[in-house]
Amino acid sequence: MTKPHTTRTIAVTMGDPGGIGPEIVVASLAGRWRDSDCRFVVFGDAGVLEKTAQTIGLAVEWKRSLDRAATRGGVVVDPGATNAAKDFPAKPTEAGGHLSFDWVNAAIDAALLAHDDPAHVNAVVTAPINKQAWALAGHAQYPGHTELFASRCSCDRFAMMFVSPTLRVILATTHIPVVAVAEHLTTDGILKTIELGVQACCQLGTPKPRVAVLGLNPHAGEGGLLGSEDQTLIAPAIGLAQAKGINATGPHPADTLFGAAAAGQYDLVVAMYHDQGLIPVKLLHRDEAVNVTVGLPIIRTSPDHGTAYDIVGRGIANPGSMRASILLALRLVANPALASSGRQQSAPNVKTP
Amino acid sequence: MTKPHTTRTIAVTMGDPGGIGPEIVVASLAGRWRDSDCRFVVFGDAGVLEKTAQTIGLAVEWKRSLDRAATRGGVVVDPGATNAAKDFPAKPTEAGGHLSFDWVNAAIDAALLAHDDPAHVNAVVTAPINKQAWALAGHAQYPGHTELFASRCSCDRFAMMFVSPTLRVILATTHIPVVAVAEHLTTDGILKTIELGVQACCQLGTPKPRVAVLGLNPHAGEGGLLGSEDQTLIAPAIGLAQAKGINATGPHPADTLFGAAAAGQYDLVVAMYHDQGLIPVKLLHRDEAVNVTVGLPIIRTSPDHGTAYDIVGRGIANPGSMRASILLALRLVANPALASSGRQQSAPNVKTP
Repeated sequence: MTKPHTTRTIAVTMGDPGGIGPEIVVASLAGRWRDSDCRFVVFGDAGVLEKTAQTIGLAVEWKRSLDRAATRGGVVVDPGATNAAKDFPAKPTEAGGHLSFDWVNAAIDAALLAHDDPAHVNAVVTAPINKQAWALAGHAQYPGHTELFASRCSCDRFAMMFVSPTLRVILATTHIPVVAVAEHLTTDGILKTIELGVQACCQLGTPKPRVAVLGLNPHAGEGGLLGSEDQTLIAPAIGLAQAKGINATGPHPADTLFGAAAAGQYDLVVAMYHDQGLIPVKLLHRDEAVNVTVGLPIIRTSPDHGTAYDIVGRGIANPGSMRASILLALRLVANPALASSGRQQSAPNVKTP
Repeated sequence: MTKPHTTRTIAVTMGDPGGIGPEIVVASLAGRWRDSDCRFVVFGDAGVLEKTAQTIGLAVEWKRSLDRAATRGGVVVDPGATNAAKDFPAKPTEAGGHLSFDWVNAAIDAALLAHDDPAHVNAVVTAPINKQAWALAGHAQYPGHTELFASRCSCDRFAMMFVSPTLRVILATTHIPVVAVAEHLTTDGILKTIELGVQACCQLGTPKPRVAVLGLNPHAGEGGLLGSEDQTLIAPAIGLAQAKGINATGPHPADTLFGAAAAGQYDLVVAMYHDQGLIPVKLLHRDEAVNVTVGLPIIRTSPDHGTAYDIVGRGIANPGSMRASILLALRLVANPALASSGRQQSAPNVKTP
């Protein structure tokens, strides 16, 4: 696998082999990106991908993309990651968990190689895995991609951010029960989330973002009548951010803020918990939103949906969010601000799981 | 104040006199509803209303509406509720709290009168009050209108529901801190909320509503990995509702459900907490959504926004949600299903605060 000198490479992981990952990967890559200056390495199963291409009527385009493997817009399926082709049921399986876990790790390995290594990739775009499948395969300690990437990079200062046509939302907490949200919030953690979001906005071309920080409680606590965290934890974090020169306001009531944000009054919304941030993003931008892990030394994007086992193999999976994820990865790779922001392409503290 | 025999009467409370209540009341009523078969009684301050009409350029229309006081589409300001006209600052005040509290109570009194009483009103539409002003006036025990209506009607089985062009959402919990949501949820309470929502849908012309019940936690708990309440509390409530013949499904992940609901796949969404239900409603339908208190013996609707002190007196307050609230009240008053649903217009257990 050689890499043309002038070309950037994007790793795309196939995700759970029983999910819609193979469909959205093929649909996103086959016959596309000919005018891009990037090539793509898929970490997945060549047999499954080929069969999927046939199922969804893209066999010819897929073959053509593979034929351009070494060139711009071409696709190569990483040979080391290829598995003996077989069928995978549309449900969480131990085998699927093992494979999808290994593929992501292989992509991370490639991203962490030195820039001049022929196998280096400049970004990783991940198709959906299944948490239960990872648990069946013995990887329950990782609730998802984000935590695996963070662990591999020894990174304890990261966040999930969603980028969509009208809303950018970063989460102060992610996959935890609602009852645990308040105890997970700290002023320092919220401040770090604000700073990570501002950093990402800079990388996306908004150097002085207008940041709206949401409250936790209804009406942002209504002056303490409906909860204390808005005043005791969130307001101080906003004050600290302002003292650092960040244009942050809040805590704003979550139920009225998103209309203003979608209308362009804010460049970034800092949400306190998963559904507070994702309900509006997915309502306005289903199949358009991209999940970006912010704070890693690796550029990593992914679609905002799951394996969707219920629609596998019917050719109706919408590849919109996957395409948007690839486009955003290309944009982040091309942005010089990224290279100058202190990213380490081969961090000294990299560990293998 | 006499009432034409064939005409229904809608009470409209003016809300906090320092808020945008007077503006949206005047803008919603002046020069309108001439073709309606209803007349309107405003419980508020005649002087403030007249001054507001002048400020927002509707003095002539307001006067004409008052001139039609006893006829269809006419407006009368309840003389008993009128206060000596004076200015109110655009902030929570004790005086404003007293007045707005008294006006709501007077409207409830009128709603609870016998049908054939000339002063009886068929529904109450409430402009925004301020919780802090009510607290300053010694009414801190009522977090808002809803609780006051429920208390006056000795009603312990009620819920907040939001009706908008594409989404109907009912809340299992309302104005409580996020940290307290889980402990407030019970299987019985969720079942009652589902039933109240179904009853309201029937009254709105959807006799067999398709009900989507949301989970509490991210991804509806992801099979218990992200919280237990989805399986231990919510799923059983859905089972009980199904056993009663209700077309209810769930628990659905909140972040992906609202798109389907807004697209028409569901007639009602049952949300577990305030922001979970209100973020999507206000994002899609700002100035169009109506808050309906379901389960009362009184028809009560209101706009979905607050006093908005920051824009008072500038003539820019959007009366859209107030108009929608009046329209929905008219629709509920006109619906025969309502009369036959066992509503008591003069409940035996009415108490005065």
